[in-house]
Amino acid sequence: MIEYVDAPPEVRQVYDDIMAIRQTDYINNFWKALAHDPVTLRRTWESIKQIMGPGGALDPLTKEMLYIAVSVTNQCGYCIASHTSAARKGGMTNEMFGELMAVVGMANETNKLVTGYQVEIDERFKNK
Amino acid sequence: MIEYVDAPPEVRQVYDDIMAIRQTDYINNFWKALAHDPVTLRRTWESIKQIMGPGGALDPLTKEMLYIAVSVTNQCGYCIASHTSAARKGGMTNEMFGELMAVVGMANETNKLVTGYQVEIDERFKNK
Amino acid sequence: MIEYVDAPPEVRQVYDDIMAIRQTDYINNFWKALAHDPVTLRRTWESIKQIMGPGGALDPLTKEMLYIAVSVTNQCGYCIASHTSAARKGGMTNEMFGELMAVVGMANETNKLVTGYQVEIDERFKNK
Amino acid sequence: MIEYVDAPPEVRQVYDDIMAIRQTDYINNFWKALAHDPVTLRRTWESIKQIMGPGGALDPLTKEMLYIAVSVTNQCGYCIASHTSAARKGGMTNEMFGELMAVVGMANETNKLVTGYQVEIDERFKNK
Amino acid sequence: MIEYVDAPPEVRQVYDDIMAIRQTDYINNFWKALAHDPVTLRRTWESIKQIMGPGGALDPLTKEMLYIAVSVTNQCGYCIASHTSAARKGGMTNEMFGELMAVVGMANETNKLVTGYQVEIDERFKNK
Amino acid sequence: MIEYVDAPPEVRQVYDDIMAIRQTDYINNFWKALAHDPVTLRRTWESIKQIMGPGGALDPLTKEMLYIAVSVTNQCGYCIASHTSAARKGGMTNEMFGELMAVVGMANETNKLVTGYQVEIDERFKNK
Repeated sequence: MIEYVDAPPEVRQVYDDIMAIRQTDYINNFWKALAHDPVTLRRTWESIKQIMGPGGALDPLTKEMLYIAVSVTNQCGYCIASHTSAARKGGMTNEMFGELMAVVGMANETNKLVTGYQVEIDERFKNK
Repeated sequence: MIEYVDAPPEVRQVYDDIMAIRQTDYINNFWKALAHDPVTLRRTWESIKQIMGPGGALDPLTKEMLYIAVSVTNQCGYCIASHTSAARKGGMTNEMFGELMAVVGMANETNKLVTGYQVEIDERFKNK
Repeated sequence: MIEYVDAPPEVRQVYDDIMAIRQTDYINNFWKALAHDPVTLRRTWESIKQIMGPGGALDPLTKEMLYIAVSVTNQCGYCIASHTSAARKGGMTNEMFGELMAVVGMANETNKLVTGYQVEIDERFKNK
Repeated sequence: MIEYVDAPPEVRQVYDDIMAIRQTDYINNFWKALAHDPVTLRRTWESIKQIMGPGGALDPLTKEMLYIAVSVTNQCGYCIASHTSAARKGGMTNEMFGELMAVVGMANETNKLVTGYQVEIDERFKNK
Repeated sequence: MIEYVDAPPEVRQVYDDIMAIRQTDYINNFWKALAHDPVTLRRTWESIKQIMGPGGALDPLTKEMLYIAVSVTNQCGYCIASHTSAARKGGMTNEMFGELMAVVGMANETNKLVTGYQVEIDERFKNK
Repeated sequence: MIEYVDAPPEVRQVYDDIMAIRQTDYINNFWKALAHDPVTLRRTWESIKQIMGPGGALDPLTKEMLYIAVSVTNQCGYCIASHTSAARKGGMTNEMFGELMAVVGMANETNKLVTGYQVEIDERFKNK
């Protein structure tokens, strides 16, 4: 992992932007690992900044919960830990987390029931 | 698939409840396929009804979008089609769908970057 | 897909063995597609023959149902169709299929609940 | 995790039922984590009890092995540890476990070969 | 799907760049679908252009084959079809495709064997 | 895990072959775990040896990177650690690893965008 003091200028620029946008002085291990490839670091951060920020049609907390839903489905321990932490900071209550988990669990179950029973798509769902 | 007219009483009861709760006269192919196993049909419907309905900490549209996020991650074509249809009925705009897809795509990307770089969980994310 | 009449000798040998072992004159599309790579065709068939045949600690029908459980979890439409067909020929009843699906659905749900809640492995489960 | 002594009555009821049905005085970490959401705790336990118990078309040990097959395919460490432990208690021998793993490994391989070669479903497998 | 003639200027700009970079007059369905969200269309194309183009440490054909390996593992039919087509244009022979599939199949098998046997990481593999 | 000194003859034969082919005196934990089932140990090793060795249409390093791409997509920690180690020994530079990760991340993202947007396969990609 590459710490700020050891980082080349193009990495420091990204670190500085992360800290400014997120109003924090902490850089996650994820970014410190990606910093080995400054091109991917920058592209990933620019994408995350564009996608996860405020001002869109979905509020930031909803987007954090969607991130958790995907990360749980993919069994990604790091991502679950970091985005659950972010969502809690963003206002996710215990009740909201409980319901989020219930939906994720249920969706994973019915995804497989649908597939196992080889259910064909209803005609009316094709007119999306 | 088991149609209403051919369904035994314990299946008709579930179909009736689905139509009453959802205020529709249409039964999805999913339920008609599950009807081959009335025990699973009932349990699945009761769970869905409990989890996806209104009155919780998350609104129904947010829950539909979480369902889509999981279904896309699992590559379940039927589930994507049916829940996208449900979400659109529930008020999901093109802008919301676009942002939902952007988050799901990004989360799937960073889930793998994290894993491939073998990033360890930050100490502060462990105090969830 | 490579039909018997068009197949080179090393492919015909495998086709002949499949038909002899399975007591059928039908070759699945899977083998006809794999036949483009005779080395993989032979290795895959030899492995399948060794793993799925009778005489082991698990009976062939149980193994077919395990195959279905994996294929459903992976959302592999072809594999679900072909192994469900094989399992039905091997004696899987509607009741057995219904319970198989129920277990697969439930396991997919709890796999995600466990992960989302970041549950740590009980000490006693580590003494396997 | 919520221990018995700290649990509210609706959680204790579920814990009591788990211990009675499983004839044990031990509650897994999974249930102690789910207890943060008593509604999900109860629904999940009622479903598991209905699906995994004796008296169905599949015996309990077969169902445990199906659970393992799904959990391995999903890479869920906790679920593999806990259900392997349960299956061993239920009579799974080393030979059975070895064959279970062989089938799961093979199914995961051929699922991808089928998909990569874009194999179409045989007409005869569509008459399920 | 949004055709060129119906596309707003910001979409046409991306279409023009795709056709220029790829030296073709054909726009894939993927881009025509993404065009409903011009922001995601542009970000995705800019990322693909940066990642998949020539001049890096990996040659473009190797990158196409890596793309196929991921797409097969994810069971994404569209992606397999489009990237297999691209790889064939880029020089992938039948032999190369056969070996690619063999590796992907084997990796999917051993990924699950490792997980099912709960194998711990060798000390020496931790010093990456 | 079964060490060499404790291994029965049929396991030692495989261990000897692994060490000879790989020109090492080290046996990975993976093989020591599989050794509990000598039939699977032998079949898996013979397959790996056939698939991953030199002399094919793809060079060994490309195959190691394909293995990593699959293992990352499957979130298999052990496999990522062991094959990243092997690829580095085989000549994978930091730049190559960075590009490999970028492709894997991007492919995982677009696989889901394609699926979520329900994109149909272009006619021209069907003529593979």
